[in-house]
Amino acid sequence: MNFSIVRFIVGWVLEFEAAFLLLPAVVGILYREPLPALCFFGVALLSLICGLLLKRWRRPSQTDLYAREGFASVALSWLVMSIFGALPFVLTGEIPGFIDALFETSSGFTTTGASILTDVEALSHASLFWRSFTHWIGGMGVFVFIMAILPLMGGGTTMNLMRAESPGPSVGKLVPRVKDTAKILYEIYIALTVIGAVVYCLCGLNLFESLTTIFGTVGTGGFGIYNDSVGSFSPLVQNMITLFMILSGINYTAYFCLLRRQFREALSIEEVRLYLLIILGSVAVITWNIHHMYPTLSETLRHAFFQVGSIITTTGFSTTDFDVWPQLSKTILVLLMFVGACAGSTGGGIKVSRILILLKNIRRELSTMIHPRLVKKIKMDGHALSDETLRSTNVFIAVYFVILFASVLILGIDNFDFTTNFTAVVATLNNIGPGLELVGPTRNFALFSPFSKCVLIFDMLAGRLELFPMLILLMPSCWKKY
Amino acid sequence: MNFSIVRFIVGWVLEFEAAFLLLPAVVGILYREPLPALCFFGVALLSLICGLLLKRWRRPSQTDLYAREGFASVALSWLVMSIFGALPFVLTGEIPGFIDALFETSSGFTTTGASILTDVEALSHASLFWRSFTHWIGGMGVFVFIMAILPLMGGGTTMNLMRAESPGPSVGKLVPRVKDTAKILYEIYIALTVIGAVVYCLCGLNLFESLTTIFGTVGTGGFGIYNDSVGSFSPLVQNMITLFMILSGINYTAYFCLLRRQFREALSIEEVRLYLLIILGSVAVITWNIHHMYPTLSETLRHAFFQVGSIITTTGFSTTDFDVWPQLSKTILVLLMFVGACAGSTGGGIKVSRILILLKNIRRELSTMIHPRLVKKIKMDGHALSDETLRSTNVFIAVYFVILFASVLILGIDNFDFTTNFTAVVATLNNIGPGLELVGPTRNFALFSPFSKCVLIFDMLAGRLELFPMLILLMPSCWKKY
Repeated sequence: MNFSIVRFIVGWVLEFEAAFLLLPAVVGILYREPLPALCFFGVALLSLICGLLLKRWRRPSQTDLYAREGFASVALSWLVMSIFGALPFVLTGEIPGFIDALFETSSGFTTTGASILTDVEALSHASLFWRSFTHWIGGMGVFVFIMAILPLMGGGTTMNLMRAESPGPSVGKLVPRVKDTAKILYEIYIALTVIGAVVYCLCGLNLFESLTTIFGTVGTGGFGIYNDSVGSFSPLVQNMITLFMILSGINYTAYFCLLRRQFREALSIEEVRLYLLIILGSVAVITWNIHHMYPTLSETLRHAFFQVGSIITTTGFSTTDFDVWPQLSKTILVLLMFVGACAGSTGGGIKVSRILILLKNIRRELSTMIHPRLVKKIKMDGHALSDETLRSTNVFIAVYFVILFASVLILGIDNFDFTTNFTAVVATLNNIGPGLELVGPTRNFALFSPFSKCVLIFDMLAGRLELFPMLILLMPSCWKKY
Repeated sequence: MNFSIVRFIVGWVLEFEAAFLLLPAVVGILYREPLPALCFFGVALLSLICGLLLKRWRRPSQTDLYAREGFASVALSWLVMSIFGALPFVLTGEIPGFIDALFETSSGFTTTGASILTDVEALSHASLFWRSFTHWIGGMGVFVFIMAILPLMGGGTTMNLMRAESPGPSVGKLVPRVKDTAKILYEIYIALTVIGAVVYCLCGLNLFESLTTIFGTVGTGGFGIYNDSVGSFSPLVQNMITLFMILSGINYTAYFCLLRRQFREALSIEEVRLYLLIILGSVAVITWNIHHMYPTLSETLRHAFFQVGSIITTTGFSTTDFDVWPQLSKTILVLLMFVGACAGSTGGGIKVSRILILLKNIRRELSTMIHPRLVKKIKMDGHALSDETLRSTNVFIAVYFVILFASVLILGIDNFDFTTNFTAVVATLNNIGPGLELVGPTRNFALFSPFSKCVLIFDMLAGRLELFPMLILLMPSCWKKY
């Protein structure tokens, strides 16, 4: 491992975090919350100093970044970002335990939205803003952000960082240069955020509600600023949130095509079509399954659409306690947790494109059994899928289930029921937020032991960074010096 | 599809089933149970007539069997075998509902051991014997049996049938000729059965108890003849059952090596070593976890060893209600349900060798990320693993989870809790028997609707036949005539 380059990159990220931390400090000043404002300023300063120290103390002699350093840098940066981001909560005394604060912040950056707080409304505005803002930073990714605004090192370097942070089986470069791709992604992201915030304001939310909610929506995070998540918002606002959640789960390539007026290309992306099909199918079955629980069809449809959109995009907002829904609807939601959003969106989960690749692979396997002489290539969007993509998808699935089952096993030590443990892991590994039973939408994750919380923090980070960066940190051979 | 050859093979299997059905008829005569004896005789006769009709009515012009016909014949034969095997239960009135009787028989042949009966002890001796004997037939497989005693068609033909019925990622031919391999397998199987039956008798069971229990043990089935499974047997008998269960989960290649006095080869099979390691590790953790529930360490160890052996070999006997164990122990058991026994044994589940292949693949992937220039081949028992085996293992895992989640979803319609549905599917797909909660070791599967029972029957057959044969039956293109 080339430690100096990793140190350099972590330092860089800390400088950026210092800048991010100024925003909640300003919010604290605006809302006349002196202690929170001071805490956020203080941590911003600390973050800046640490960042500068890490960067200045012996500059890296070699700036080339191999895959190993790329993965390790990204994983360590996200961990350090979460640690520094947790400090203000501890200092203000709003979340006194460090592990709890780390859980909350990792949950924010990884756009999970799982909370250990029972009473969210007791937080200061500064902290509420920071909680939601971490979703926004983590949604598109901090490295994508850095790349979009800074002239980075070589192309291979940036590619390796981006590959570690971008969701999906293969990194789609929209345009030849990584820097331009990152810029375009953030432009679309900011456009969605601004449009969403304006729409929410027009529907009756105040600016603070609107901003925090849109951060959680476009980042597919799910932290709400009220104890009932977004349940107290008007039906109109809830429907708008549904719309923006579903829009945020779409592969950004589709928006890029739309911007270039390539409408047919945008509509023909197989992943997006399957994603919308899954949403419609799930809503149809759930509506039929829960229609007796709500007075009108429109209310039933609103709740069904909201929860399906919230879960498949791995956002995790809720308008109603879906833990009391019939088992069929709950099972659909649990399965949607696995599916997740499109690759190349801000959502988590296995990703629709991976599911599509797996299903196509199974179909090919079966038809090869029936017609042994038929050699078929798997195609996606008209292009043959490379063996490399197929192989990495298979490995991803294997690693995914190994982490999932290992986590469920460790959580067993706390002696809660199987559904709680299973859905807690599923909800964190897929960056969703609420699960079922004791971690259902009206509950929180405070009940777990500190050790289990650390496992879930690992799961959140592993889920957001697509498993491998976090796993590489655990490999002893990764830490050997060249 | 070459229908005439499929029909011919199904006819053949029915003739053999007629012979098998004579045994419980004889048991019925010995125990002076006229109605059951008559029913079993009658169904044996019906089975023989149907078999003869299917075989005689236009002989197949072409006796070559391609993979498609191999898979379809095996899947259809198992289905038809279960249907005819269910008839005696319906005719005697002991299981009046046909779906229930089909569930019970499929559960028997697939060595699952999941029951819909609340009071097993109310059955006649003939029916109890048949229930257990189906385990013995299904354990090693009816086609392996047919191949071992009949001169079959070409070598490719027998290989395609054997491939569809044998558990594991690749069919290991012990000796060059398939027929000889089948013979050796059955010889080992019969030896284990006879030794086990004698040991059980020596430990105090009567002949009937001993025979039915050993059928369930070596077939890794799990039907008991008492309502508390084997809980009322003496500790000595229980320990002997544990021993024979664990022996039955070992890859038969190991026994073949032992017979040839290749002791070092037998001990160096990686799968067997991992299998034994998993058992010891699980027993250690569970013993630590449940030691406060039982008066002595030896009793704790007995229960821990028994349940671990019963679950990992996918047998499903129980000596105690493990649903009241702490969550950690229960989670270990649920994970062992997925692992399953060794390939090339009579056990079900994903199989230890597949888990080993997946773990090795993950390790290779991670070290490729760390050392990109290192090209490593995956090795098993000193030989490089073929890409074909790796590919088919990956496809197996994908299909496995698709069937698993689809089944859990459909079971959701019955509106039982998630743990019940999830473990019911896991316990049937892996051919174990008991799950947790409403399908725990002291409960049964009677609560499910007929439709859900059909899904579980499909899962049992799919699990026993390693998924693909049953899936191929669902493909419309499989049914096209050449």
